[in-house]
Amino acid sequence: MIKVGIVGGTGYTGVELLRLLALHPEVELRAITSRKEDGLPVADLYPSLRGRVNLAFSAPDKADLTQCDVVFFATPHGVAMAQAPALLAAGVKVIDLAADFRIKDRAVFESTYKIEHTAPELLEQAVYGLPELNREDIAAATLIANPGCYPTTMQLGFVPLLKAGWIDASHLIADCKSGVSGAGRKAEIGILFSESSDNFKAYGVGGHRHTPETAAQLQRYTEQKVGLIFTPHLVPMIRGMHSTLYARLTREVSNEELQQLFEDAYREQPFVDVLPFGSHPETRSTRGANVLRLALHRHGDTVIILVVQDNLVKGASGQAVQCMNLMFGLEEGLGLQTIALMP
Amino acid sequence: MIKVGIVGGTGYTGVELLRLLALHPEVELRAITSRKEDGLPVADLYPSLRGRVNLAFSAPDKADLTQCDVVFFATPHGVAMAQAPALLAAGVKVIDLAADFRIKDRAVFESTYKIEHTAPELLEQAVYGLPELNREDIAAATLIANPGCYPTTMQLGFVPLLKAGWIDASHLIADCKSGVSGAGRKAEIGILFSESSDNFKAYGVGGHRHTPETAAQLQRYTEQKVGLIFTPHLVPMIRGMHSTLYARLTREVSNEELQQLFEDAYREQPFVDVLPFGSHPETRSTRGANVLRLALHRHGDTVIILVVQDNLVKGASGQAVQCMNLMFGLEEGLGLQTIALMP
Amino acid sequence: MIKVGIVGGTGYTGVELLRLLALHPEVELRAITSRKEDGLPVADLYPSLRGRVNLAFSAPDKADLTQCDVVFFATPHGVAMAQAPALLAAGVKVIDLAADFRIKDRAVFESTYKIEHTAPELLEQAVYGLPELNREDIAAATLIANPGCYPTTMQLGFVPLLKAGWIDASHLIADCKSGVSGAGRKAEIGILFSESSDNFKAYGVGGHRHTPETAAQLQRYTEQKVGLIFTPHLVPMIRGMHSTLYARLTREVSNEELQQLFEDAYREQPFVDVLPFGSHPETRSTRGANVLRLALHRHGDTVIILVVQDNLVKGASGQAVQCMNLMFGLEEGLGLQTIALMP
Amino acid sequence: MIKVGIVGGTGYTGVELLRLLALHPEVELRAITSRKEDGLPVADLYPSLRGRVNLAFSAPDKADLTQCDVVFFATPHGVAMAQAPALLAAGVKVIDLAADFRIKDRAVFESTYKIEHTAPELLEQAVYGLPELNREDIAAATLIANPGCYPTTMQLGFVPLLKAGWIDASHLIADCKSGVSGAGRKAEIGILFSESSDNFKAYGVGGHRHTPETAAQLQRYTEQKVGLIFTPHLVPMIRGMHSTLYARLTREVSNEELQQLFEDAYREQPFVDVLPFGSHPETRSTRGANVLRLALHRHGDTVIILVVQDNLVKGASGQAVQCMNLMFGLEEGLGLQTIALMP
Repeated sequence: MIKVGIVGGTGYTGVELLRLLALHPEVELRAITSRKEDGLPVADLYPSLRGRVNLAFSAPDKADLTQCDVVFFATPHGVAMAQAPALLAAGVKVIDLAADFRIKDRAVFESTYKIEHTAPELLEQAVYGLPELNREDIAAATLIANPGCYPTTMQLGFVPLLKAGWIDASHLIADCKSGVSGAGRKAEIGILFSESSDNFKAYGVGGHRHTPETAAQLQRYTEQKVGLIFTPHLVPMIRGMHSTLYARLTREVSNEELQQLFEDAYREQPFVDVLPFGSHPETRSTRGANVLRLALHRHGDTVIILVVQDNLVKGASGQAVQCMNLMFGLEEGLGLQTIALMP
Repeated sequence: MIKVGIVGGTGYTGVELLRLLALHPEVELRAITSRKEDGLPVADLYPSLRGRVNLAFSAPDKADLTQCDVVFFATPHGVAMAQAPALLAAGVKVIDLAADFRIKDRAVFESTYKIEHTAPELLEQAVYGLPELNREDIAAATLIANPGCYPTTMQLGFVPLLKAGWIDASHLIADCKSGVSGAGRKAEIGILFSESSDNFKAYGVGGHRHTPETAAQLQRYTEQKVGLIFTPHLVPMIRGMHSTLYARLTREVSNEELQQLFEDAYREQPFVDVLPFGSHPETRSTRGANVLRLALHRHGDTVIILVVQDNLVKGASGQAVQCMNLMFGLEEGLGLQTIALMP
Repeated sequence: MIKVGIVGGTGYTGVELLRLLALHPEVELRAITSRKEDGLPVADLYPSLRGRVNLAFSAPDKADLTQCDVVFFATPHGVAMAQAPALLAAGVKVIDLAADFRIKDRAVFESTYKIEHTAPELLEQAVYGLPELNREDIAAATLIANPGCYPTTMQLGFVPLLKAGWIDASHLIADCKSGVSGAGRKAEIGILFSESSDNFKAYGVGGHRHTPETAAQLQRYTEQKVGLIFTPHLVPMIRGMHSTLYARLTREVSNEELQQLFEDAYREQPFVDVLPFGSHPETRSTRGANVLRLALHRHGDTVIILVVQDNLVKGASGQAVQCMNLMFGLEEGLGLQTIALMP
Repeated sequence: MIKVGIVGGTGYTGVELLRLLALHPEVELRAITSRKEDGLPVADLYPSLRGRVNLAFSAPDKADLTQCDVVFFATPHGVAMAQAPALLAAGVKVIDLAADFRIKDRAVFESTYKIEHTAPELLEQAVYGLPELNREDIAAATLIANPGCYPTTMQLGFVPLLKAGWIDASHLIADCKSGVSGAGRKAEIGILFSESSDNFKAYGVGGHRHTPETAAQLQRYTEQKVGLIFTPHLVPMIRGMHSTLYARLTREVSNEELQQLFEDAYREQPFVDVLPFGSHPETRSTRGANVLRLALHRHGDTVIILVVQDNLVKGASGQAVQCMNLMFGLEEGLGLQTIALMP
């Protein structure tokens, strides 16, 4: 059994980790930290876990996380970089669901997140946790930077085309839509029910933090300079992410060749589902499940890729568990077989 | 033109007052105060008002509210009682949308709201602003205690039966359901979209602040001791309130007599709509409109009254404007003719 | 492995059965019938099942259901009664999720559902599938009448009090609220998104079909004549049911005794969760999970019981699988361990 | 007073016309036809109109529409073309909210809508009812083709740039999102609450009927061949439309020049609101109001235009009333002053 600790278990990625790990046959939950909720049974905050998770939150200083085999950080940016060095030194593997180790370039990180990086020596060692593109490195890693939710959809949508060299990498458009849980469990006016229900808006156009992460990752697959326009929007639904990606072809390819390219790219990937050409995937077909589904469309020389996932599962906690499985030599899908809730 | 000031214009009842008053033909908006948003144009906070309301918020100490003919308090409990005495002394009429003057018994008020009442001398003078039951007093009043949203539905549903003496007043059940805007525009986890969407729950069972207000008002219409069980629930919708009221008949009456009782009670009331016996009113039939609709059902000796309204209009700001019209001798429905938005 | 057939797999209880059974370790799905969708892969209609369910729908006459060990009917009322006799004769167990065998009294059934009962000889043999009240009979049964969703909440809420003889059975009030999926997957105007979103209403007050079923079941636990007022409401959420139950105590009992009564009643029941006295259970704490949670409140001589469940799981398909497990001597919770999705 | 008839009053654009016209000071509603609801009081179908609209639906053959000054067609495609010729011959003005007269090229119309055009002789005479681009023609028209909801946003967003000649017209991308009411009041599975709530998807990618209408209109403002990629999506909200438009600049312009271009274009337009550069308009800021709001963003050589409106008001019925006002020489905004409902 893998002994697991979670730092910051009160947010949405934290409770989602609990939901997945409570049913994982090879996991033993050892500690869940929360400074604010010290002593509170986890199931009191999340009654959905009554009878399933019997732990209480413990203050960070009371939890001996060095007894764990792996520690997940489901925290705001900046926490993992402070605690990871000691854990790694004690032989504990670390999976960070925040951004601390996602961007290799320290200067870009610091200008993007407006905080100083306090563990820059770990940036090189950290492995970007997107199994479909990085499986071998993840299996060998001790420190994982779990990808952002938006970046997961953009990479799995664009990379096959970039690798093939079929599109103009300098003008990629990603028009993305996310459910409100992506904004986290924070007491903010803008994500109140009465503010975000029955409403739709874009936000952070031109300056979302996921742009540098995605651009840097996409750059790995092309020699052309990547130009990415990323427009996030807020959808009045709890979970779910839909990315509508536009790229211009730079050579003649048929729709069949496009479809074949994606099917070949993802045939062996258990958690990526390529739908028939011209399909319209719905976010609800992934609700609660660790799966990303995509479909291709075509308009003249423009390819349109529709990508959906549950932002809290394949876009966050499910992906983190997928990485954990790889890191510990387990079957990649262990504990991740839940089927999407529909309706 | 009536010169109007609003204290606390940033909450939902405040912006709803602005929506109604901006189109009121006899109103001139003079000042809207907000300590926090001093100097901010109202339309920057509420873009729905762009081009319609050109005022900026001003800090309370900068606004000379004594120049107004009437001041609305769309504030948390405790603010109106602090400022009303000076305004009244200056000849300004006051309409309080909070609870400061709703409960005549100071001790009950203080134990219910956990604050000291600092203007107890005004409690007697304050008029409870429910025009359908209190029209003449409102017309003559200088200080209005605007009713709570839940109490409005419970009173307009139970009072005809209490007046007639047909029901057992000692065992009234009000199973009430409110949209989330009733909880106000506050940064609280519990009313986040991701917490209250796709969810339903009761809250405050046995101890909601609207119970003493309602019980005291109902008591005015019966000599029997009123016993009221009030169970509020939170519905995943923005606006709307549905109260399902249960009372046991103490004498033989036919369904026709029941229906007649209510039709007689409200025939002359422009903002109460009695539907045919056995109807199922929907909250959306009142969305944005100053109207309360109700319908009667019967099961053996139990009468069931279904009551709907928009909690922010007939349940708050619309009712306040209705009171203002009466206080200034205007046609009662002036500025209140908007039709419900459906769908 | 149990060979399972499903008649009527296109509705919401059908797809929910598929979600649960696809992951059940002792089940082999053999046939799913649909006259309309004959030949269509199940996963084309429900992409959430892509890669998990490889069956196609087959027309009823093509599917040899007599090869199955058990057949679930997720059909409109009237279908199971037509097909069950032949299946039972062939030694196949039958679990009907519709109402065909829920009401023992044929005349009451026929007047309630407005159809003739074509297999009245099976009414006596059919076992009402509420395991918490009926476990032994279910284990021995060949024909199960799976309870309605509302009746499940009303029975599990009222029965401990009826058995104890502490309440006035002649005046029970059940003010119930259901998510829209309870209305089924039917092309009807009233349950369109644009009609039922941001809206709340009662429906079927005084005449809902679940009243006779519930009253007859409750009657089994008291010698007093049961009087039940049942008021269903429609909540703008997909899944979830919240029943607010009111009963008057006929003797002196303390809150502690009340709580103890329920804890004793459900201590050994894996799928009923009694919360601390005075709690407010939320429907989302059961979303997707086979669990019913309840909490007690008290107001004078009135007990208020708040009950929540997922109408499609503990209220329908999960309960049916729970019955199947009992009928085949399996662990009662097999395949039913999924944790509620929250947020 | 203008005598008004409505053909097809049971759908969402029909009831929205009723809401607006019932409060219009110069309108007298004379007839509302519905074959199916003949004789039913309008307020029985739409209780929001109780006390405001006293007409009953009448069968088409019973309503003498030739007594009207103007007739609105809030019908499916194909109805207006059948009835308009006789009405026009009788001197009645016609405003069609469907597509019958939107596309001048009969062949394109017929291949897009899959029906034969039975009044092709009126195509030339019909005026496209977008007042901001076409005011004079509308004022002189007797037959109006009211624009589609999506096309309204695309035209008002792209046209200033096309007129200026600053963008590459051959590669315009419109990523558009609509509330569910845009799909109409039809009994269809796909728009049930349980299917479209808590969900997001694209639909009709590559083949939506609004593409030819929009492309043809945009073509009027540029000599370059217009290339338009239009991707519609369904948002789980009732009303509201958000179009995210992308165009590439073909010359050097500053953000200030861009902003100035739009402010100049719409300064005199009462129902188009240009927000400050870099704003994020929300659909709810237009809920129920006849206004379109837009804001500009910039990413390198790409201009991003965010456009919002209420699809039933400025996107349909409100625009139709705006046209009516112009056709009858009334003040353009008469009856259209309602402020958006927020929250």
